[in-house]
Amino acid sequence: MEGRASMTEDAMNWTVYLSGEIHTDWREEIARDAEALGLPVLFCAPVTDHAASDDCGVAILGPEPDKVWHDRKGALMNAIRTRTLLEKADVVVVRFGEKYRQWNAAFDAGYAAALGKPLIIVHGPEHAHPLKEVDAAALAVAERPGQVAAILDYVINGRLPG
Amino acid sequence: MEGRASMTEDAMNWTVYLSGEIHTDWREEIARDAEALGLPVLFCAPVTDHAASDDCGVAILGPEPDKVWHDRKGALMNAIRTRTLLEKADVVVVRFGEKYRQWNAAFDAGYAAALGKPLIIVHGPEHAHPLKEVDAAALAVAERPGQVAAILDYVINGRLPG
Amino acid sequence: MEGRASMTEDAMNWTVYLSGEIHTDWREEIARDAEALGLPVLFCAPVTDHAASDDCGVAILGPEPDKVWHDRKGALMNAIRTRTLLEKADVVVVRFGEKYRQWNAAFDAGYAAALGKPLIIVHGPEHAHPLKEVDAAALAVAERPGQVAAILDYVINGRLPG
Amino acid sequence: MEGRASMTEDAMNWTVYLSGEIHTDWREEIARDAEALGLPVLFCAPVTDHAASDDCGVAILGPEPDKVWHDRKGALMNAIRTRTLLEKADVVVVRFGEKYRQWNAAFDAGYAAALGKPLIIVHGPEHAHPLKEVDAAALAVAERPGQVAAILDYVINGRLPG
Amino acid sequence: MEGRASMTEDAMNWTVYLSGEIHTDWREEIARDAEALGLPVLFCAPVTDHAASDDCGVAILGPEPDKVWHDRKGALMNAIRTRTLLEKADVVVVRFGEKYRQWNAAFDAGYAAALGKPLIIVHGPEHAHPLKEVDAAALAVAERPGQVAAILDYVINGRLPG
Amino acid sequence: MEGRASMTEDAMNWTVYLSGEIHTDWREEIARDAEALGLPVLFCAPVTDHAASDDCGVAILGPEPDKVWHDRKGALMNAIRTRTLLEKADVVVVRFGEKYRQWNAAFDAGYAAALGKPLIIVHGPEHAHPLKEVDAAALAVAERPGQVAAILDYVINGRLPG
Amino acid sequence: MEGRASMTEDAMNWTVYLSGEIHTDWREEIARDAEALGLPVLFCAPVTDHAASDDCGVAILGPEPDKVWHDRKGALMNAIRTRTLLEKADVVVVRFGEKYRQWNAAFDAGYAAALGKPLIIVHGPEHAHPLKEVDAAALAVAERPGQVAAILDYVINGRLPG
Amino acid sequence: MEGRASMTEDAMNWTVYLSGEIHTDWREEIARDAEALGLPVLFCAPVTDHAASDDCGVAILGPEPDKVWHDRKGALMNAIRTRTLLEKADVVVVRFGEKYRQWNAAFDAGYAAALGKPLIIVHGPEHAHPLKEVDAAALAVAERPGQVAAILDYVINGRLPG
Repeated sequence: MEGRASMTEDAMNWTVYLSGEIHTDWREEIARDAEALGLPVLFCAPVTDHAASDDCGVAILGPEPDKVWHDRKGALMNAIRTRTLLEKADVVVVRFGEKYRQWNAAFDAGYAAALGKPLIIVHGPEHAHPLKEVDAAALAVAERPGQVAAILDYVINGRLPG
Repeated sequence: MEGRASMTEDAMNWTVYLSGEIHTDWREEIARDAEALGLPVLFCAPVTDHAASDDCGVAILGPEPDKVWHDRKGALMNAIRTRTLLEKADVVVVRFGEKYRQWNAAFDAGYAAALGKPLIIVHGPEHAHPLKEVDAAALAVAERPGQVAAILDYVINGRLPG
Repeated sequence: MEGRASMTEDAMNWTVYLSGEIHTDWREEIARDAEALGLPVLFCAPVTDHAASDDCGVAILGPEPDKVWHDRKGALMNAIRTRTLLEKADVVVVRFGEKYRQWNAAFDAGYAAALGKPLIIVHGPEHAHPLKEVDAAALAVAERPGQVAAILDYVINGRLPG
Repeated sequence: MEGRASMTEDAMNWTVYLSGEIHTDWREEIARDAEALGLPVLFCAPVTDHAASDDCGVAILGPEPDKVWHDRKGALMNAIRTRTLLEKADVVVVRFGEKYRQWNAAFDAGYAAALGKPLIIVHGPEHAHPLKEVDAAALAVAERPGQVAAILDYVINGRLPG
Repeated sequence: MEGRASMTEDAMNWTVYLSGEIHTDWREEIARDAEALGLPVLFCAPVTDHAASDDCGVAILGPEPDKVWHDRKGALMNAIRTRTLLEKADVVVVRFGEKYRQWNAAFDAGYAAALGKPLIIVHGPEHAHPLKEVDAAALAVAERPGQVAAILDYVINGRLPG
Repeated sequence: MEGRASMTEDAMNWTVYLSGEIHTDWREEIARDAEALGLPVLFCAPVTDHAASDDCGVAILGPEPDKVWHDRKGALMNAIRTRTLLEKADVVVVRFGEKYRQWNAAFDAGYAAALGKPLIIVHGPEHAHPLKEVDAAALAVAERPGQVAAILDYVINGRLPG
Repeated sequence: MEGRASMTEDAMNWTVYLSGEIHTDWREEIARDAEALGLPVLFCAPVTDHAASDDCGVAILGPEPDKVWHDRKGALMNAIRTRTLLEKADVVVVRFGEKYRQWNAAFDAGYAAALGKPLIIVHGPEHAHPLKEVDAAALAVAERPGQVAAILDYVINGRLPG
Repeated sequence: MEGRASMTEDAMNWTVYLSGEIHTDWREEIARDAEALGLPVLFCAPVTDHAASDDCGVAILGPEPDKVWHDRKGALMNAIRTRTLLEKADVVVVRFGEKYRQWNAAFDAGYAAALGKPLIIVHGPEHAHPLKEVDAAALAVAERPGQVAAILDYVINGRLPG
């Protein structure tokens, strides 16, 4: 019976923003897990095509001879997407990978924390010390992407694995 | 005629968060009453499986030998759910039962009050004095869960019982 | 084509809260006008059954011998509805009638103004001077309820009467 | 020792906005009482010279033949003062007197309530019923201005009269 | 499978407010481009019928002999629409054209910036210097309306032109 | 007696931001008037040295061959000052002069309006029509800078000229 | 040199609200410790005279035969103080003692958490499990009041004990 | 003449938070420069004693055998300081150095950006590409700490170097 009294598990979608490294397919892994569990989750993310993400500004708005402004135009354009989706998200997941500086992942974590978004941080144990301030702002710190759908399943359905 | 001028009673769902004790079936009682009255209400709640709620953190993120961190991991994970649902709620109901300290119920009431959520507090008369600060932040103080659906029916439909 | 690019007039509902006097049928007049114009408006309002509105608190939560607390219980319960709907509204209309003090109408106007809601005030010219502070917070001051649907038609569709 | 650890009573000023009727000297009465009690309170208020308040707009910005715009210019100019002081206030007192409609007093009460300001309402018992919604938003309802300084003395110093 | 896990591109509509000059058909151009690209965008805008926009206040609320108040009534009524839509928008586009002062376009840009809305500014290179403060608040500065749908396509779908 | 009960006129400073054209000495005129009246006002303003304001970015952070980025660096640096002072201000005055487009003045007015700041707009009558949306967001519209100190004197002290 | 460039330790006062049990002198202990350390802290607290706190409402506003309303009047009046000081505080400390339900302590903790205030919770290890949700919202969990001044000394001066 | 009309340069202090690497004396360099320029700036910063910052949690609240919780306790305690000072700051400076991951610097930048704080980022040109998203959120990007005081001198006094 539509629009009548019911418990929330059947009726609410969760929006989850997946921020962080773009060189492995961890987002797809989480989405597959979530689909297998039948979770009512809408995932969103930054543009994960590295080249497109770097060049979008100049591709649409015109070239820049100076790399700094080439980058700036792209970063600003990407911010239209990332800030909008971060603010719409119910939960923000930030993954730190093996490589690169990943300062924009930490920036997103800080941005989400200041907005009061529930944060899930994903990183290997080798990064625990340098990420301690980021982890301290999180409601869950996972080691592997494979734990994220289980967290969402518990948070949404109260269901534990196994 | 969809999307055309109409009065709100027929068209708006209310989201109601049910916080507080998890050892009796008061949530189901309210949901049954609301369903019998045909109320357009979506109820949400913390995870009410006590064991799952205590152990969710370590079950998903790995064991902790120290009980304090076992509890902390669980409480943080539960907060992903409770803070999200509290912030989405139109109305927050907090029930204080006979047993236990129920500090998290009072914590939720304070959290909801600071967010400006309309609060309905439910407790027996024997708790009136120690709950006076909590009651003073509420828009309704009921003695029994059986009064909650009647409040919602009035608030939504302007209909009084009997 | 659902979910594809389109102009807003066809796709967005407006929620309009109708605050103020409850002794004439001005709300129905506005709703009829809006329906005749096919406006995509969802109207909401306080409970307009005067007796129910006065007695709701004691009818559900138990009698009070002292009229002050009888009234307080009712006013608090009504606030669950009025504050929720005021905060959800896109536009707030407040009508001041011929009779009574109508302090709660002015209170609602102040409340809506502080929330930054677009305000439409409706009153006869004889009240212009004592309502000047309220009118100064409004985006439109109408003399008759009959002008309200025309304002909404213009605001939503850009269409002027006749 | 300046700037060293101390309890707050000695060190914090409270700002209290006195809204409402301007035909009796109730503000001076409260200020005298507060001075006699040595309260660290800074009182602020709307302009209470009725003629100046009505005519300020045209006196400074030029005359208006139409009374509605004469009033509008004045009400807007007064709002520069009243909104600024209301937002700076720690506590807002609103007094309703014997005469006039006093819609701007109720408007200020609603405005302050939406800002989350602690509200003290002052009115005689004969106005209790029509002011019930306003009183329900207050943290204290006094019958006489003479009670306001006692409330402030308790709130600031924890001191009860007598 | 409705309400199940999925990536956002297929499931979220974007609302885009198109502010600025009303003498060319740039809004229709963007809407056509967006439709051709199949973008899930809902466009909204101020009333673009210049005469209606100027006269709406007096047409509905009664004539004013003084042009200043004629204009004021209209500007206030238009603000019901523009502020509501600006606040609902995910992205705000402001176009500055060849003619007129267009102070309301710059006002809208400032308003949107203070609300934290992602801003896209559109203007010819000849206005770059006087618009430098406005551009500095934007996430994209385009020279032609024809670039706007491409920006939205990238932001929503991660797709670059050509 | 310091820190004891007193009325606000003697004890509160007002911060007033003066935005807008920088080619006449209207700010000094207002400051002189305010000083003559003994007003407790702290005025603040953007940097009014036109050349410094244009070149600050490159002067400190290094040259840019492209005028667009030269301007961007300067506009961003100026925004550190203007946004900080706008947000600290109790009242915002925006003056539109005879010359130039002055889009940043209108941008500041929109920014201040969205922050809920009381706005005073100053412009000659010849600009009334194109500035009608800006004026509609203001609490006072003056024709000459000479009226601004009189407005502040009334708002702060309740004193009318002459 | 006053008002010239300096590091913050010498120049900023911290306001710390001490919420929770009122039957031991833990507040004085913290204040003495802070004074001994020369900390630039202003402590504030609820009224800690139990009888005054219970009876303030009826003592000033008149008696109530019904204990519920006697308590309500007092709790509302105390809220003028507690909410004002909580919102002014930089840091909120909440202590849970041996006795009583202390629901208002947990309520204050929830209120402070929703406002984003840094929370320090103080309780003995025997309460760790029932307070796990409260602790999870805290930035420090101490076992004894004697640790609080050390936390403040570190937070303010970067100085560790011993 | 104290408290009388004056321009802001002489009367307002700016609070500037210096976030980022703690292995060189860049903060002292900026403070010295600011002092030499006589800037009315109050600088604040995280605790920069690396060992104290790592160990503060266990030093005060008791040891943890597991390094993860050792770090967590410290990071949470440091957050009492850093979040409070970040929120009080008028301007936030974040410096990225040569070494380490510096994720907490990027986290602070994101946190400050979401709060709407004016951001100044300092880093060498070799980090321009990986920091492009952070830089895009900034109002100034400097290469050397030596440029920061010059920015503040311009922002506060309108004075350019040399």
